[in-house]
Amino acid sequence: MIRTRIDAEQTAPVEMDGVKNVSMRVLLGAEHGMPHFSMRHFVVEPGGHTPRHRHDYEHEVVVLSGHGEAEHAGETAPIGKGDVMYVAADAMHQFRNLGDEPLEFLCLVPRERDGGGEVPGS
Amino acid sequence: MIRTRIDAEQTAPVEMDGVKNVSMRVLLGAEHGMPHFSMRHFVVEPGGHTPRHRHDYEHEVVVLSGHGEAEHAGETAPIGKGDVMYVAADAMHQFRNLGDEPLEFLCLVPRERDGGGEVPGS
Repeated sequence: MIRTRIDAEQTAPVEMDGVKNVSMRVLLGAEHGMPHFSMRHFVVEPGGHTPRHRHDYEHEVVVLSGHGEAEHAGETAPIGKGDVMYVAADAMHQFRNLGDEPLEFLCLVPRERDGGGEVPGS
Repeated sequence: MIRTRIDAEQTAPVEMDGVKNVSMRVLLGAEHGMPHFSMRHFVVEPGGHTPRHRHDYEHEVVVLSGHGEAEHAGETAPIGKGDVMYVAADAMHQFRNLGDEPLEFLCLVPRERDGGGEVPGS
């Protein structure tokens, strides 16, 4: 059985333009032979944010802990534990930590882009 | 932005052979236009269990709360909050609540079967 655990200590810094104080770990992905989609764990430190960007594949996101806001296609909404969001392909989006604790979420992506080729970080 | 929240009160009983005291809700699925995979929320009451079955599509599972065990292809392991598991296509599997509180988990599935056709409950 392929098993792992959510563990913020095991995430690694994300080095990408527009990222501030974010670390991540692929919980289930290419290296585990996932056939269709991948599960990643993100930790955004207080004051940090993911890149404000867009790409040709979707996200399904569930917030595990912390407080912040999500921007998606020009709309911004507060997010906290238990919130679930869909980020559509090609929609500009960003996740920002506005709290005093780490903002942690799972973000799932398809393994393959619509136009073919591997989704980065999957 | 398509958003929802994890809420055990919004799950509905699962009526299927071999199921005992399980309710579920599709958080992001066909009705929300998910293109590749779906996120579902399951609540297994104390003493309850999902069906012991197999099917031609995979699961990615993350435990939100409670205690129990997962059986997968003849192997059984304890599960609790923060555990992540992959259930391979065609592997016999079951989730059982062995605790005094509801066992809650997210279970993600592809929208489409390998052989074509929609995955039930996606």
